[in-house]
Amino acid sequence: MERAIDQVRSQQPLVQCLTNTVVQGLTANVLAAISASPAMCDTPAESADFAKISSGVLINTGTPNTEQYAGMRAAAKSAEANGTPWVLDPVAAGVLPERSKFLRKLLKYHPTCIRGNASEIMALAELGQGGKGVDATQGVQEAIPAARALLERGVKVVAISGERDLIISKKRVTWLASGDPLLQTVVGTGCSLGAMTAAYLGARKKVSAHNAVVAAHAHVGAAAQVAAAESAGPGSFAVAWLDALYNLTPTQVLAAVEVKEG
Amino acid sequence: MERAIDQVRSQQPLVQCLTNTVVQGLTANVLAAISASPAMCDTPAESADFAKISSGVLINTGTPNTEQYAGMRAAAKSAEANGTPWVLDPVAAGVLPERSKFLRKLLKYHPTCIRGNASEIMALAELGQGGKGVDATQGVQEAIPAARALLERGVKVVAISGERDLIISKKRVTWLASGDPLLQTVVGTGCSLGAMTAAYLGARKKVSAHNAVVAAHAHVGAAAQVAAAESAGPGSFAVAWLDALYNLTPTQVLAAVEVKEG
Amino acid sequence: MERAIDQVRSQQPLVQCLTNTVVQGLTANVLAAISASPAMCDTPAESADFAKISSGVLINTGTPNTEQYAGMRAAAKSAEANGTPWVLDPVAAGVLPERSKFLRKLLKYHPTCIRGNASEIMALAELGQGGKGVDATQGVQEAIPAARALLERGVKVVAISGERDLIISKKRVTWLASGDPLLQTVVGTGCSLGAMTAAYLGARKKVSAHNAVVAAHAHVGAAAQVAAAESAGPGSFAVAWLDALYNLTPTQVLAAVEVKEG
Repeated sequence: MERAIDQVRSQQPLVQCLTNTVVQGLTANVLAAISASPAMCDTPAESADFAKISSGVLINTGTPNTEQYAGMRAAAKSAEANGTPWVLDPVAAGVLPERSKFLRKLLKYHPTCIRGNASEIMALAELGQGGKGVDATQGVQEAIPAARALLERGVKVVAISGERDLIISKKRVTWLASGDPLLQTVVGTGCSLGAMTAAYLGARKKVSAHNAVVAAHAHVGAAAQVAAAESAGPGSFAVAWLDALYNLTPTQVLAAVEVKEG
Repeated sequence: MERAIDQVRSQQPLVQCLTNTVVQGLTANVLAAISASPAMCDTPAESADFAKISSGVLINTGTPNTEQYAGMRAAAKSAEANGTPWVLDPVAAGVLPERSKFLRKLLKYHPTCIRGNASEIMALAELGQGGKGVDATQGVQEAIPAARALLERGVKVVAISGERDLIISKKRVTWLASGDPLLQTVVGTGCSLGAMTAAYLGARKKVSAHNAVVAAHAHVGAAAQVAAAESAGPGSFAVAWLDALYNLTPTQVLAAVEVKEG
Repeated sequence: MERAIDQVRSQQPLVQCLTNTVVQGLTANVLAAISASPAMCDTPAESADFAKISSGVLINTGTPNTEQYAGMRAAAKSAEANGTPWVLDPVAAGVLPERSKFLRKLLKYHPTCIRGNASEIMALAELGQGGKGVDATQGVQEAIPAARALLERGVKVVAISGERDLIISKKRVTWLASGDPLLQTVVGTGCSLGAMTAAYLGARKKVSAHNAVVAAHAHVGAAAQVAAAESAGPGSFAVAWLDALYNLTPTQVLAAVEVKEG
């Protein structure tokens, strides 16, 4: 895991983000804070070309419009064709019929990793009803069968965010205890984790995809713990979290979190 | 007013925001800071469905494009049909002909509350010429006839932001002295107040719509006063304001502001 | 240069920004922090009218979609026709074919100033291949012939951002040493500099366009130096930078930077 963190910093992976406009600013700043190079390129005309030259791609369906939907299809197809790892963050899967339909179609381009909350993972696998707006109404444990169903369909790693995060691939199940409740009070921390996951998958060398995803989650969670200790509310927490993402050494990240293979 | 603040925190209303891309991030974070659940859903395909399941809807015309205009029409129509309270923030009414025309059409869906500066309220009621870009060029007092004209057309509450805020409904006129000049140096504080107003209207039980709107304004203003006391400029003010929105108790809000029935 | 800074604060120029959604929030807040009045108006229907009433216009091609491309064309054409100074920030010129083509077409409306990194300036002049995503891969010095070629085509001032910034017009070459490496860790500081340049060009009276552009760059750089001294990472730097943009006096800006006519 320490190696994965070092690799992101040394390789500065170019990460294409097709994400919602609400969190574009924070996502880009999170990527810059970990030394990745963010590019919020999402138009139909440019998305496929950009997915080819990027180290990793994030597709997050927070606020798609017609044009962005087309861009997402083009990027996913191109990422798969060109061997660029890509992360799907299925925001609000199961809440709105059109979005659920679109998300299920994206699965045919085999995302390297799907990251979401339990409700989103279950809805995506058609094993649940979705949450309240963008918030989960189910627990992480309940989403394990849905995660396994998605792995069967060719996804390499599924990460389910919750009180403890679950990272699951065909042969491994990892539980990660990290983070702080203040993470939920800042909009876009989860979406930024999706982008960081794409950065980690894009930079990895001699690190498994599973471990790269665990490392991205640990980095986010450890930084939240440091930030929470010195902040007075969501405003100061967001500031301190960016600082900690930038400053934490791999050793500090590892020391802060609890990882349990299950 | 204290009850209204408590209700937002306990009910965590889902607030759909069709707002401009400049302030989406701040608006979402403001809603999260007061324990509401933000959803920036604004596409034509999804807006009507989302307005049905939301507790409150904000329509803010800061930077609309063709697709968002269609989403706004759909959301306003659905909000009215489904009894979801909705707030209209008529940004730049009177400045640009197309936007003014669009805004006047939205009035037929009877916004629960209209919140804007004096120039916007006057332009919307076709009793004035609009401001400079997004800034007001008229005083609050001058906009009272325009506010009354909008109430006659079925709007429940009109809130006019200025040095003192005016909240006006058919039977009541409330002046609110609160806030700090630094609020004007952070872009999106007014737009966020619109979203908070939708949250307050969505969460209220045994609280009048008028009082819910006053409470939203008082919460914003009191937090600004706390934040101004500990900040060195617009950057640190924005951070401290979010912290104060999160931390202030209803009693602290009430103690900080001056409310005068007029 | 001191006069230029004073003029922005006293005149509060209305600056229309057609810029990428990632940095709209920061850009608007930077403009507000220096007392300019930001307006992120970029639709085809409204852009031309708005460019007419604005003091300055910024066109930044960070994340354009089809509709925004049309808005940019309309704004550039209207700005030239109405004598409104406008700044072109050719983000990712040379990286993507469609964008490069679009950018070269915009040149026929004679931007008052072009601001970019060396790779972008070279690609725009068709004297280079573009950078990595949005980052430069060439040095400032190498881009001087490209800058001169753009001046020949009617651009008044070209500003090339780098370790030292270069501001070049037909008769003058100015090197500016200012800023801090932390500026690169916050996404949108360069884009915001483009908007500030438009504000400075819009507010200038008895100040040359060249000096207005130098002053905008000096203001950004000096504020970065102040902010870096009191911050722990990119999060706290961004906050302190906004505070310093707001607080620094013209004399303090001038004292902090090194200007060399070359």
